[in-house]
Amino acid sequence: MVNIGVIGYGYWGPHLVRNFMTTAGSQVLAVCDSDRSRLRSLQSSHPELLISTDYRELLADPALHAVAIATPVATHYDLARDALTAGKHVFVEKPLAASTREAETLVEMATRKGLCLHVDHTFLYTGAVQKIRELIGTDQLGELYYYDSVRVNLGLFQSDVSVLWDLAVHDLSILDYLLDEYPRAVSVTGQTHVDGNPENIAFLTLLYQSHFIAHLHVNWLAPVKLRRTLISGSRRMVVYDDLEPSEKVKVYDKGITLNGHPESRYRALIDYRTGDMWAPRLDNTEALGRQAGQFLRSIETGEVSPSDGQAGLRVVRILEAAHRSLQERGRPVRLDAGI
Amino acid sequence: MVNIGVIGYGYWGPHLVRNFMTTAGSQVLAVCDSDRSRLRSLQSSHPELLISTDYRELLADPALHAVAIATPVATHYDLARDALTAGKHVFVEKPLAASTREAETLVEMATRKGLCLHVDHTFLYTGAVQKIRELIGTDQLGELYYYDSVRVNLGLFQSDVSVLWDLAVHDLSILDYLLDEYPRAVSVTGQTHVDGNPENIAFLTLLYQSHFIAHLHVNWLAPVKLRRTLISGSRRMVVYDDLEPSEKVKVYDKGITLNGHPESRYRALIDYRTGDMWAPRLDNTEALGRQAGQFLRSIETGEVSPSDGQAGLRVVRILEAAHRSLQERGRPVRLDAGI
Amino acid sequence: MVNIGVIGYGYWGPHLVRNFMTTAGSQVLAVCDSDRSRLRSLQSSHPELLISTDYRELLADPALHAVAIATPVATHYDLARDALTAGKHVFVEKPLAASTREAETLVEMATRKGLCLHVDHTFLYTGAVQKIRELIGTDQLGELYYYDSVRVNLGLFQSDVSVLWDLAVHDLSILDYLLDEYPRAVSVTGQTHVDGNPENIAFLTLLYQSHFIAHLHVNWLAPVKLRRTLISGSRRMVVYDDLEPSEKVKVYDKGITLNGHPESRYRALIDYRTGDMWAPRLDNTEALGRQAGQFLRSIETGEVSPSDGQAGLRVVRILEAAHRSLQERGRPVRLDAGI
Amino acid sequence: MVNIGVIGYGYWGPHLVRNFMTTAGSQVLAVCDSDRSRLRSLQSSHPELLISTDYRELLADPALHAVAIATPVATHYDLARDALTAGKHVFVEKPLAASTREAETLVEMATRKGLCLHVDHTFLYTGAVQKIRELIGTDQLGELYYYDSVRVNLGLFQSDVSVLWDLAVHDLSILDYLLDEYPRAVSVTGQTHVDGNPENIAFLTLLYQSHFIAHLHVNWLAPVKLRRTLISGSRRMVVYDDLEPSEKVKVYDKGITLNGHPESRYRALIDYRTGDMWAPRLDNTEALGRQAGQFLRSIETGEVSPSDGQAGLRVVRILEAAHRSLQERGRPVRLDAGI
Repeated sequence: MVNIGVIGYGYWGPHLVRNFMTTAGSQVLAVCDSDRSRLRSLQSSHPELLISTDYRELLADPALHAVAIATPVATHYDLARDALTAGKHVFVEKPLAASTREAETLVEMATRKGLCLHVDHTFLYTGAVQKIRELIGTDQLGELYYYDSVRVNLGLFQSDVSVLWDLAVHDLSILDYLLDEYPRAVSVTGQTHVDGNPENIAFLTLLYQSHFIAHLHVNWLAPVKLRRTLISGSRRMVVYDDLEPSEKVKVYDKGITLNGHPESRYRALIDYRTGDMWAPRLDNTEALGRQAGQFLRSIETGEVSPSDGQAGLRVVRILEAAHRSLQERGRPVRLDAGI
Repeated sequence: MVNIGVIGYGYWGPHLVRNFMTTAGSQVLAVCDSDRSRLRSLQSSHPELLISTDYRELLADPALHAVAIATPVATHYDLARDALTAGKHVFVEKPLAASTREAETLVEMATRKGLCLHVDHTFLYTGAVQKIRELIGTDQLGELYYYDSVRVNLGLFQSDVSVLWDLAVHDLSILDYLLDEYPRAVSVTGQTHVDGNPENIAFLTLLYQSHFIAHLHVNWLAPVKLRRTLISGSRRMVVYDDLEPSEKVKVYDKGITLNGHPESRYRALIDYRTGDMWAPRLDNTEALGRQAGQFLRSIETGEVSPSDGQAGLRVVRILEAAHRSLQERGRPVRLDAGI
Repeated sequence: MVNIGVIGYGYWGPHLVRNFMTTAGSQVLAVCDSDRSRLRSLQSSHPELLISTDYRELLADPALHAVAIATPVATHYDLARDALTAGKHVFVEKPLAASTREAETLVEMATRKGLCLHVDHTFLYTGAVQKIRELIGTDQLGELYYYDSVRVNLGLFQSDVSVLWDLAVHDLSILDYLLDEYPRAVSVTGQTHVDGNPENIAFLTLLYQSHFIAHLHVNWLAPVKLRRTLISGSRRMVVYDDLEPSEKVKVYDKGITLNGHPESRYRALIDYRTGDMWAPRLDNTEALGRQAGQFLRSIETGEVSPSDGQAGLRVVRILEAAHRSLQERGRPVRLDAGI
Repeated sequence: MVNIGVIGYGYWGPHLVRNFMTTAGSQVLAVCDSDRSRLRSLQSSHPELLISTDYRELLADPALHAVAIATPVATHYDLARDALTAGKHVFVEKPLAASTREAETLVEMATRKGLCLHVDHTFLYTGAVQKIRELIGTDQLGELYYYDSVRVNLGLFQSDVSVLWDLAVHDLSILDYLLDEYPRAVSVTGQTHVDGNPENIAFLTLLYQSHFIAHLHVNWLAPVKLRRTLISGSRRMVVYDDLEPSEKVKVYDKGITLNGHPESRYRALIDYRTGDMWAPRLDNTEALGRQAGQFLRSIETGEVSPSDGQAGLRVVRILEAAHRSLQERGRPVRLDAGI
């Protein structure tokens, strides 16, 4: 049984509490938030919990094996560092930290102390993304051509981080999960429509060594909510629409076929292919519950999590470069190959 | 009565013939194509027409006042130049020419000779785009924030020009029509998935002096056809979906409202607004017919066409800069302020 | 403060408990279910509640002013009758009772004892249905032509009542709320696809004295979930799609206009009208909460509820006639005018 | 080579002319319409055709082997009878005739004279309906449960026939093609909203000997255009949406499974099944062209057409009974078993 303390009880914290309460193999012993008013109803319905406004109380509790951190990004580093120092396994909201340097330090600390560092890349644990990974893994899509995502709505403007850190992080973690290849450069444009605030709309392209290209489209100021990703390969193409109630993943037997010798590939030698469409049944288990299970397995068996600290670091590294490119109006920024 | 000769009778030529035949004030006297087989059925059903495989025959015919050119882009310059030299008004397929230099020369020639040079920017003449222009012109959208277009499908790969010249040209002409402002720079990324062929997927951002930003998303290798543009202003937002059978333009009374002094605009001072949605009735007259009418009025009354040579040049200038940015993986390329 | 006891803690009961707990002016003092296992977690999180497996314990409690009944239809009559006898106001799940005779008795009892009898016709309290009622009330639709509803999905087959009693009841209560007119006859067809079970698919037409017609389409065995109603008037038409995330109600300025003298209305005198479409913003407050408020106001001020016992009786009367028509393969069954 | 004359050159006639002109094995020699103005442009573009305002001229022409009739329903009988008498094969618009008696006479005449009588049941020749027939024929749907069609839009009100004869005829012909079983009774409700005109909205149920049930929903006064049919079987379910641009037919591996002995089929023994969805690629050849080919093959080889006179008669018989049921507000009208 893994004993968990949850730090941060705002929007996401209650979901973490509920999940670690109901997942077999874990129990929640303590919850903390700097704002005591948020904790009141929890205290009355769960009088057995240690309730605190000081996270250090949790870190000092030897009964806790792990903490789950659901606080603003800027605080992730300090909290995770202190937790690792106190010998706790750490489950932290995305993104892992506010800079590459912070993320690297956390990864290094966790490795050194033999503790699990897990980032909450929720989408990796959805039936939809797992099915897409399976399609790629069994080579049903063929050579991958592109990943093209639109993730827009009338969302809450954040004053500390741009829309990249809020929305693009989802696609970057999905790409990290689906691909073996790390991007070589990133080019980003965007704009703020509230003076003095960070960018509320951004367009991000990831460039790779291969022919693959990824493009993310994030926007807090859109009249309609869209969550649609096209993933194209030489063999088949996928439309992943997270707002579809039932058929979130559609696989199209569509595309082009190249005929003739490579050196003479000109227009006449491209054939167009249109076949069946297929929407596989997806596992509808709640993603957060499956993710909690992964965290517990990593702690108990050492199984490598697909959203471990390394994955979190890879994502933060891209976000940091993306921010730089955005400041320079799209100039491509190289990403260190060494990952 | 304006007498028209049509040069090029492939995919688009027959539409031009039909339109200039049926638009009041014009008649088609001659049609030419270098491939005689394309002209056969036209000849039998319209024996009164001058049918030719040599466009110079048309240019030499003093009965013709104007020619409409529907041939590959690479040939636009030579054909239009010869037609203007021969004293004919010119209606030419988009884009106007294959380079800024060519386009400038054509504009200069037409001006010097007092002839009309009209570019077939078809979308400007649709009920949808005209309604959007009216919404902007009557300040119903407020300060413009962004234009964000997705124009993708499994389209015919072209071997001579990239997807930018085939699809992005539509949005560039619409933007030219809707906005008073010319972009200051362009940043483009893209990829080819057929070795040796031009890019079949591209992402183009236009950066402006103001807070406005435009983004175009074009792709010949998508499993589904999408034609959706979000146009956002401080007052209202528009979703323009050209594939909707009836409600192509939806106007949302949605957005954010800023409260308090500009210097203190932080998160707490942004209010979110959600009101009614409204889909105005659109004029369903065929766009090509209305465009033919505009061309004839320009010839007869000197009325300035919104898709005249100047407009065509402005679009080609962006395409050329976009191509350069694409070669340099997104590096922003400045556009000459000189419009 | 109205003190409430909730009878039945299966699927719907927990919603009632939560709503009466959080609605200003009411509190829940007791909850009962014949299956003790369902009550366990409630007991631990709310130790202050009276928890019982015998509803008579609740009826005997003088502290309770009202009971809310969320049990199978077949038990509504006995429970409501006993509650009224015990002097409690009654809030009961739809449909009010299993037969017209039962419903009449309950209405008569409530009237005689001066108690509120309220039926949970939830849809009446949604922003969408209230907006449609407002459109009708302000004569924006003109003379009403038809109500045409499709309410299908892969739903839970019930073994005791047909799909009419489960799904059609929603539309019958909405119609009762929207219209001043009561139907004159009902014609119903349907089928069972599981031998020995009640009908899982049914088509119900309500015929009126006027030109109005209503048609309901209910089905437990459909591959997709649909909840779409067309409501047409001489002036405007409404599409009400309850599955649309934001624009649930769309108002079309579309229809026909009759010209000329009534006696000579033939084809040439019908004009077709196509104008704007408009989706009004809807109140998104939870319907159940608003309904709880209505029940409390009815108790405290005597305000007539739109889903009182009379409304519940009118709906049950149609269901009963519908069942008879269904047995006779569509033969129209008259409804007593006297309501 | 089959020589065709086309009678009626209004809305549909030009399509017939074009199709029989371009289908291999047929040529159009003559076209007739009582309104000479409709024929003018045809005459100028096709001076080789015999153009007439008197259909008897065509019937008298020994060069013609067959006539295609595209005139109002009320005239079908006279024209087809005269054509058969003159020894011509007949292709006639749907519905075959205005009454069962007329249809029977035509079928009997054609049989006696050994001529082909073909009804234009266009939908039978679409890729979508042919694919559905294949799914049924290869038992992929299992035992058929229901056919449920919605076919509504703001359509042209006809003053001579109700919406049944205009729209329901499509579904009746599709059902005739898909099923081996003929309905036993029909129950229809509907309403007119223009005094003195036939019904513009109608709801038709077909009742069968088996558990199968069909329901048609036709309406000329709807704010949106819908063409959606659900076809359900014990094994799989189909959604056929004719307005979908690409995936018109979707096959759902969804439904219920009955466990246990038939005599004990109660609720607990129904299992729900949700699997993949699949949209097969459809043949996109124009339906009318394929139908022309069928007509020619029937003439030349005697191959039985799925939309021959017998099929047309079966459809008219249902329409006639439907009309009677509609007059009696849904009373079920028996259909003669003998077909």
